[in-house]
Amino acid sequence: MRVEIWSDIVCPWCYIGKARFEEGLKAFAHRDEIEVVHRSFELDPDRATRDTVPVVDMLAKKYGRTREEAQAMEEHVASTARSAGLEYRSEGRDHGNTFDMHRLLHLAKAHGLQDELLALLYRANFAEETSVFDPEVLVALAVRAGLDEQEARRVLDDEAAYADDVRADEREAAELGATGVPFFVIDRRYGVSGGQPAELFTQALEQAWQGRAITPLGGGDAAACDADGACEVPAAAAGATVNS
Amino acid sequence: MRVEIWSDIVCPWCYIGKARFEEGLKAFAHRDEIEVVHRSFELDPDRATRDTVPVVDMLAKKYGRTREEAQAMEEHVASTARSAGLEYRSEGRDHGNTFDMHRLLHLAKAHGLQDELLALLYRANFAEETSVFDPEVLVALAVRAGLDEQEARRVLDDEAAYADDVRADEREAAELGATGVPFFVIDRRYGVSGGQPAELFTQALEQAWQGRAITPLGGGDAAACDADGACEVPAAAAGATVNS
Repeated sequence: MRVEIWSDIVCPWCYIGKARFEEGLKAFAHRDEIEVVHRSFELDPDRATRDTVPVVDMLAKKYGRTREEAQAMEEHVASTARSAGLEYRSEGRDHGNTFDMHRLLHLAKAHGLQDELLALLYRANFAEETSVFDPEVLVALAVRAGLDEQEARRVLDDEAAYADDVRADEREAAELGATGVPFFVIDRRYGVSGGQPAELFTQALEQAWQGRAITPLGGGDAAACDADGACEVPAAAAGATVNS
Repeated sequence: MRVEIWSDIVCPWCYIGKARFEEGLKAFAHRDEIEVVHRSFELDPDRATRDTVPVVDMLAKKYGRTREEAQAMEEHVASTARSAGLEYRSEGRDHGNTFDMHRLLHLAKAHGLQDELLALLYRANFAEETSVFDPEVLVALAVRAGLDEQEARRVLDDEAAYADDVRADEREAAELGATGVPFFVIDRRYGVSGGQPAELFTQALEQAWQGRAITPLGGGDAAACDADGACEVPAAAAGATVNS
C-alpha cells in the first residue's frame, strides 16, 4: 500500500504527526509493504519569499494575543512534541513562505532522497538553531541529504524548477478534500486528517489493508503473457489465435 | 491518480500494451495528473541467469509446434506490434531470466530514471539487434538512461541488490490477483489485464477518475494546521486548547 502525506515544513502538527505516523507504522504487521510519499502543502503561499516573521509574533497577531500568551501556546505544542520523542525549540523560530523547500523536496524525490531531506528540514526548523528560510541553509541541508550542491543551487535559483510539481500536489490536496495538514491518504482510498495518536494510524493501516480490492475494468479476453511464460492471443483480441 | 504497470521485458504484450496504454493516456483529459510506476514481474523466474534460448525455439517447445509454426506466431505478434507503431524484430530474439533487468529498473527508480531505462530495455529487446541478457548491454543501457556506470555494475554484480524490491513487486501482483502481464492498476482500486486497445485504457482512466473518493478514518478532531495557516489544538486531542 502507499501512504501519501501532505504537509508543510512550518506546520508543527505535521512534524508531530509524522513521528506519530511512523510510530503507528512500526506496530503495523505489513509495514514492509508500505511506501510513503511526501506531498507539498503550503500554509502561507501568499507570503513573499523573503518575508519572515517570528513564530510567536505571527501567533500573537493571528489570535489577537499578547506575546506571552502566544509563547504559552508554543510551549504547549513543544510539550506535545517532546512527548512524541521530538526535540522542539519553542523560541527563535521563524514563519514564512515554504515554496522553495517544497521545490527542493521534489528535486530530492527525483533522486530518491525525499525522506532524507524532509527529515533534515523538519529537524532544522523545529529542533535546531537554523533558519530554513536562508537559502544557504537549504543548500547545506540538500547536500547533507545527498543531493549535488550545484544542482540544488540551480533549482533554488530557478523559481520555475519543480514549481509545477508543488502546485500539482496542492491541487490534488484540494481535489481530495484536504482542508488542513497533515493529511494522510492510504492508497487513494482512505484519509486520515491531523496529527492523530500513533494507535489510530495503526488501526487505519489495518482497516485499509483489509479493504484492499481491485475492480477489474475492460474485457478479460485481451492478449497477455501468463505467469508460466505463455503469451497467447485470444481470438477476440486479435481476430486470430497463435495457439489453435 | 497513479497507474502501476506490472510487466516483464521479454513479454511482447507488455511492450505492445505499454504503447497502447500511452496512446490511451494521451486521449485522457487529466493525463497531466497521472503518475506511472513500473512494477516487476518475471515470466520465467526459475530459469538460470545465463540460460537463454531463442524465442522461436522456446515457443515451438512450449506449444508443441514446428519452428515454422512458432515463427508464424512471432510474425503475428510482430504485425500487431507494428500496427501499434512499434518496431519488432521477429527473428533472432532470445528468451531468458529477467531478474537482473528488474533489479536495474529499481536502481533506476531510485534515481528517477525508471521510465528512461524501461523504454531502452524494451527497445533493445524487441526492436534492436542486441541481447538484453548480456550484462555489458545492460550496463550500456543503464548509462544511456542516465545512471552511473560504476553503480550499475555494482548492482548487477551483487545479486542481492534490489532483489527484495523485485520480489515485493511480485508478491503484490499475486496479492492483487494478477495471473499474467501486463497488469495495470489504477490507484489500487481498478485493474486492467492485458494489452487492451488504447480506447479501453482511456475509458478505464475516465471511470477511475469519476470513482475517486476518500473515506475518512479516525476522529476529525485531531490537531492540524489549516490552509489559512492556523495551527489549533482541539480540546479533545490535547486536553487543552491554545485557541480559547
